[in-house]
Amino acid sequence: MSLSEFELIGRLQELICIPGDDAGPGCAVGIGDDAAVVDVPEGRQLVVCTDTLVEGVHFLSGTPAGAVGHKALAVNLSDLAAMGAEPAWFFMGLTLPSGDSAWLESFAHGVSDLARAARITLAGGDVASGPLNVCITALGLVESGAALTRSGARPGDLVVVSGEPGRAAHALTVLQAGGEPQAADRAALDFPQPRLSLGRALRGVATACIDVSDGLLADLGHILESSGTGARIEAARLPVPDGLSGLPEDLRWRLQLSGGDDYELCFTVPPESRARLPDIARDCEVGLNVIGEITPGDGLRVEGRDGRPVDTSHPGYRHFGGQGGAEQ
Amino acid sequence: MSLSEFELIGRLQELICIPGDDAGPGCAVGIGDDAAVVDVPEGRQLVVCTDTLVEGVHFLSGTPAGAVGHKALAVNLSDLAAMGAEPAWFFMGLTLPSGDSAWLESFAHGVSDLARAARITLAGGDVASGPLNVCITALGLVESGAALTRSGARPGDLVVVSGEPGRAAHALTVLQAGGEPQAADRAALDFPQPRLSLGRALRGVATACIDVSDGLLADLGHILESSGTGARIEAARLPVPDGLSGLPEDLRWRLQLSGGDDYELCFTVPPESRARLPDIARDCEVGLNVIGEITPGDGLRVEGRDGRPVDTSHPGYRHFGGQGGAEQ
Repeated sequence: MSLSEFELIGRLQELICIPGDDAGPGCAVGIGDDAAVVDVPEGRQLVVCTDTLVEGVHFLSGTPAGAVGHKALAVNLSDLAAMGAEPAWFFMGLTLPSGDSAWLESFAHGVSDLARAARITLAGGDVASGPLNVCITALGLVESGAALTRSGARPGDLVVVSGEPGRAAHALTVLQAGGEPQAADRAALDFPQPRLSLGRALRGVATACIDVSDGLLADLGHILESSGTGARIEAARLPVPDGLSGLPEDLRWRLQLSGGDDYELCFTVPPESRARLPDIARDCEVGLNVIGEITPGDGLRVEGRDGRPVDTSHPGYRHFGGQGGAEQ
Repeated sequence: MSLSEFELIGRLQELICIPGDDAGPGCAVGIGDDAAVVDVPEGRQLVVCTDTLVEGVHFLSGTPAGAVGHKALAVNLSDLAAMGAEPAWFFMGLTLPSGDSAWLESFAHGVSDLARAARITLAGGDVASGPLNVCITALGLVESGAALTRSGARPGDLVVVSGEPGRAAHALTVLQAGGEPQAADRAALDFPQPRLSLGRALRGVATACIDVSDGLLADLGHILESSGTGARIEAARLPVPDGLSGLPEDLRWRLQLSGGDDYELCFTVPPESRARLPDIARDCEVGLNVIGEITPGDGLRVEGRDGRPVDTSHPGYRHFGGQGGAEQ
């Protein structure tokens, strides 16, 4: 069944908006006017991010519609998490090749399930016809002055990463080699979980924070650049995800250090805050691993076992495709 | 010359950001972190809208890059204008087929020239590769409770439209018939001017307001639906744009009433405010024409000369293409 533009907007609204609470708290004018009008409480700052998903670039053609919807919102929530912000409202620019109602229902469920869990409200958007493209702008709130940024890391601070980076990159390489990834890895790729409670818990604790979208080293590099520091990372301190435990260690490290799409948080804490990490990990139900420390200067040094350097180049899909095929 | 993603983001930032004022007033954290952090002053509400432009849907392939950049921002500013809001910050999700630097320079100039004129600051965004798609989210500010909406029209209110609607639709039909529109009509299509000062001036004066993007009657229809009223429009009260003066009156009216893309404001004012319109028109340097009045009930009646009904169906491009060709 194919829907017209107005039917499509109406159906999206039905599926994504929270019933009985169309506009959401603090939303004076919601969907259905030229723009939304929202109230930012006194003493709070507004945190805003935009991320676009393009078919064939950010997700493979044929990715289930529910995963596309989830991920389009998740990558934005992950940015809010990295700032320590509370999600508030989001706006969606959706470009769709057709009004395929089955695809749309699944897509909308992917968005709305995550929106409810994260307590964020769709407050406006725009639907157009064209090649599939989902552009979401998410607005969050944070106490004035409390937002986490990339620029506060200091020499001696510990470098910490949440969860088990590398699973999404592994799933992608297996898929691109024509294989079927393990369910947990596939879930990490298709349904990344934004670390919102961790971001909140890190306010006043972390000196710098970023979400890992481009790869752990690349994103840590942004912290180092903004903070004017270097870092020393010990690859052997990375947690070993189940699905990657059978890989040669060097290859696993390359996936974990240079693969993207995990949406874990990488952050720095002063050594005296180390003792707080276990409580934060327990409260936020996520593993936290210290993987290195911030150093003076501007170098990023990655050590393997016995201090030897590690090849941190991204394992090219073509190259790894061959190896991945042999492992299936 | 082709640019990498990071070069492209850097160049866009150079071209669009206001030098010496990267983050803009009230912007605590600007481009270069996971999200922007902005301050909403006490006593103000935040007004937010999102609009996407897709090549081949919202603009013809081959439209000059500067016009694409201008229009992508203008359609969002037009929504802020319709709410009576002051532009503050915008966020851009840009999907581009290639890193063509000449195209990008022109595009960025189109965006930045309008951004400077409208005093709105680029505070974040995202660049991806894929079919051309520009999704902008614009944030504005308005005194709490002062935003214009669609829902306040009351029977007896006058219906007013700014500028000379119909020029953009005329340019588009001429272009689609293979002709070359007059410069003023082409400018209306490619470089629409958001009516920001008019929107501001209408706060406390207009009872309802909308920007005309889909066509005057269609957009007026949204006001009627939200306000629970009808309207009577006299087509002969529409201003006659120079480029459309040679068209048969019925055809001109259809273009003016049902053609889109003009980004004028259509609004309602109580009869006692009519005397204020000439001053507002002069201060805002835009023509204002009363074209009808709000009526009880839910009908929208359009009268031509001597009260006879007017054909308000959209002049289909194919149909009009033939006539337009004969007029060249």
